[in-house]
Amino acid sequence: MKVSKFGGSSVANAEMLKKVANIIQADEERKFVVVSAPGKRFDGDHKVTDLFIELLNQFTAGVDYQETLTQVTDRFRMITQDLSLSNEIPDHLEKKIVELFSLKKSHEQLIDELKSFGEDTLARIFSDYLTMLGIKSTYKNPKEAGIIVSDDYGNATILNEAYEKLYELRNQEGVVVIPGFFGYTKTGELRTFPRGGSDITGSIIAAGVEADLYENFTDVSSVYCVNPKLVHEPKEITMLTYKEMRELSYSGFSVFHDEALIPAFKKKIPVVVKNTHQPDCPGTMIKAEKEDFSKPVVGIASDEGFSSIYVRKYLMNRELGFGLRLLKILVDENISFEHAPSGIDDMSVIVRTHQLTQEKEEKVLKRIQEELHVDTISIQHNLAMIMLVGEGMSQRINVAAKATKAIAEATTNIEMINQGSSEVSMMFGIESDKLQQTVQSLYREFFEHSPSS
Amino acid sequence: MKVSKFGGSSVANAEMLKKVANIIQADEERKFVVVSAPGKRFDGDHKVTDLFIELLNQFTAGVDYQETLTQVTDRFRMITQDLSLSNEIPDHLEKKIVELFSLKKSHEQLIDELKSFGEDTLARIFSDYLTMLGIKSTYKNPKEAGIIVSDDYGNATILNEAYEKLYELRNQEGVVVIPGFFGYTKTGELRTFPRGGSDITGSIIAAGVEADLYENFTDVSSVYCVNPKLVHEPKEITMLTYKEMRELSYSGFSVFHDEALIPAFKKKIPVVVKNTHQPDCPGTMIKAEKEDFSKPVVGIASDEGFSSIYVRKYLMNRELGFGLRLLKILVDENISFEHAPSGIDDMSVIVRTHQLTQEKEEKVLKRIQEELHVDTISIQHNLAMIMLVGEGMSQRINVAAKATKAIAEATTNIEMINQGSSEVSMMFGIESDKLQQTVQSLYREFFEHSPSS
Repeated sequence: MKVSKFGGSSVANAEMLKKVANIIQADEERKFVVVSAPGKRFDGDHKVTDLFIELLNQFTAGVDYQETLTQVTDRFRMITQDLSLSNEIPDHLEKKIVELFSLKKSHEQLIDELKSFGEDTLARIFSDYLTMLGIKSTYKNPKEAGIIVSDDYGNATILNEAYEKLYELRNQEGVVVIPGFFGYTKTGELRTFPRGGSDITGSIIAAGVEADLYENFTDVSSVYCVNPKLVHEPKEITMLTYKEMRELSYSGFSVFHDEALIPAFKKKIPVVVKNTHQPDCPGTMIKAEKEDFSKPVVGIASDEGFSSIYVRKYLMNRELGFGLRLLKILVDENISFEHAPSGIDDMSVIVRTHQLTQEKEEKVLKRIQEELHVDTISIQHNLAMIMLVGEGMSQRINVAAKATKAIAEATTNIEMINQGSSEVSMMFGIESDKLQQTVQSLYREFFEHSPSS
Repeated sequence: MKVSKFGGSSVANAEMLKKVANIIQADEERKFVVVSAPGKRFDGDHKVTDLFIELLNQFTAGVDYQETLTQVTDRFRMITQDLSLSNEIPDHLEKKIVELFSLKKSHEQLIDELKSFGEDTLARIFSDYLTMLGIKSTYKNPKEAGIIVSDDYGNATILNEAYEKLYELRNQEGVVVIPGFFGYTKTGELRTFPRGGSDITGSIIAAGVEADLYENFTDVSSVYCVNPKLVHEPKEITMLTYKEMRELSYSGFSVFHDEALIPAFKKKIPVVVKNTHQPDCPGTMIKAEKEDFSKPVVGIASDEGFSSIYVRKYLMNRELGFGLRLLKILVDENISFEHAPSGIDDMSVIVRTHQLTQEKEEKVLKRIQEELHVDTISIQHNLAMIMLVGEGMSQRINVAAKATKAIAEATTNIEMINQGSSEVSMMFGIESDKLQQTVQSLYREFFEHSPSS
């Protein structure tokens, strides 16, 4: 029993939906289908969900929204026409929108309901299409399916009590099509999930029905071992563990939003990333346990936009709680830190630069200076982090040696090395302008040389 | 103008004091002499200060202390006799001790006063000896010199207001001999410094008179670049910076007690470590600023007895303040941490094992588990830390590459790498039983190969 989730670009038009239908037909284990709202069909096109938001903005501003209303409903009419279905569902959608606008609902409630229409309408259409193809299929509204969520507008989370009812979905005959992105509170109010919402729904359904596999169809064939913007046509990863995936998601790997897979992970359900255009390609499998230890490094993640606050104070390491007080100043200012490497008398705190406004930066530096009486304080911006990821890597004696050699070959100075806790990753901080050449050098070392180390 | 301090083994007997007198005579810049109490003359001998403590313990316990009193005063009588001086000073010492015991002083006050007698008596004797040799010399009691200290028994610190008076010592004619280890409070009470007390006095005098050099005479010719217990006859360090010295003092380099040099450092006075037996050897010079950047690594420090507490929690890095709360649990339990390397979802805290009793370890692990709801928690003991030290090292692209290669060549797995903050050091955590072979491999790489990298 499989749960197959299709992202926005996989359901952007009728042509894509035909591909999706073929995928469903090709494997009778594909019993649960979760769909996003139609995404962009071409560069510069609108995502349907963005049109809904524009529509609401126009309505709220009291300007004429008829054109946008037509635009969004026509997106669906084009799909139904191309699939040789009636316009019943798009016409009904138009009525529902007008009706929603006539009700006295809070703005937040309006946003959540309107945002859900893309997924919901598409699920209805696709279920009808499958039926037309002679496949027994049922549209299931999330309320009926049992997706009971917390009462947070735009940021709902699944409640544990939902799972009992979700398990009953297994008994439903034929294919079940469920719209992604939203659920209902215990009192029956609609709430959307945060970003990556359809991935979340898919993951919840997979956990709920205890699926054998959660297939996540998108427009890439698999997860690359390195950011393809930095390395030309890099190798693909065939197998990852949850932990590796999570470390990779740190940066440069945005296949999933981190939290999306939590429900599936908790039930140890394998996840596969597949390409709707090439459904027979194996894709990238993500499992709970490592199976193949032959490659110490499975991927290289990287990200820019870090700053390092450096403090030095003579005899710092004699002061119990010094590090604590330093970090507390940051937390007080609502700045989360990524790393805090410390020497004997010095300590750096690595933070994401976007958290530091000019004003906040000055305040934090001033507070550290005045409250901790440090001898030296400085801040360095424009840092990039590179993370080598591979479970069990820390047991491979020469990974660090190979990595540092590759970085030196790129004539890059290491500002920071962090390998300490994780058995899954080793991190290097460098200056941003050296990022590409350094990642390329690491790629050559770990992915183009001998297959193992 | 130089301040020359002589440690306990350098003033253990008359023969040594003759060497010291020669050293003073050899350079007329050596105007200020700070002496310790006589140390051990041979393996198994008593340090004079230990005899004073034994004496006090006997007095306090109400047992007969006459034998010990004779033993300690005879140590000085032997010195005065061998130097052809009268017994006046040792006889006076004996009277002072008996008198002290007759006064109703607190135990703490008694300890501090008695402990100071070793240095004080030796300074008086040595000044007389210099005078006998025809060198103009004055004994200066710390009160008279102006060493005004805080009111902490056995743990005094110099007060800033002392320096004005100390500067006047420059005007004293001839050689000035000052006993190390103690000072006087503003109300005139004697207080001793903590461990390394004579080094502290020398450092204070050097700062006070704004000396050109603080010479620290001991029984080693210089500071080795690596612990000679781990590497046979290692190279000596000719030049260090304060920062390098401080990082090296982390472990395996116990030439100074860390705090001792602070007064001299604050005034940027160069310090040289010299051997009383070989005063013409250049020794190891310690300066404020790095002058020679040709060698990226000046020394390899290492130490054992570390433990690593490892925690893993999914989505840890989304929790603002997680690291803070973890460290706070340790601080609550009075455990200071050395390093806290963190990954995306995991964090390790490296602590010195001696801080963890079985009970404390269990309590800390339990608190972390229960208060932070971590997914995984474990603790690893028997870790050793190796620290490569060299100011400006972080600017040398291939130091990390060479170091990790050398560690891999020792077939040692790196449990932790910490290079983040310090521009002065790079630290590697390994299993203790690999320490010697790893340090040897690093020594070969950085000290036996090409002179530079």
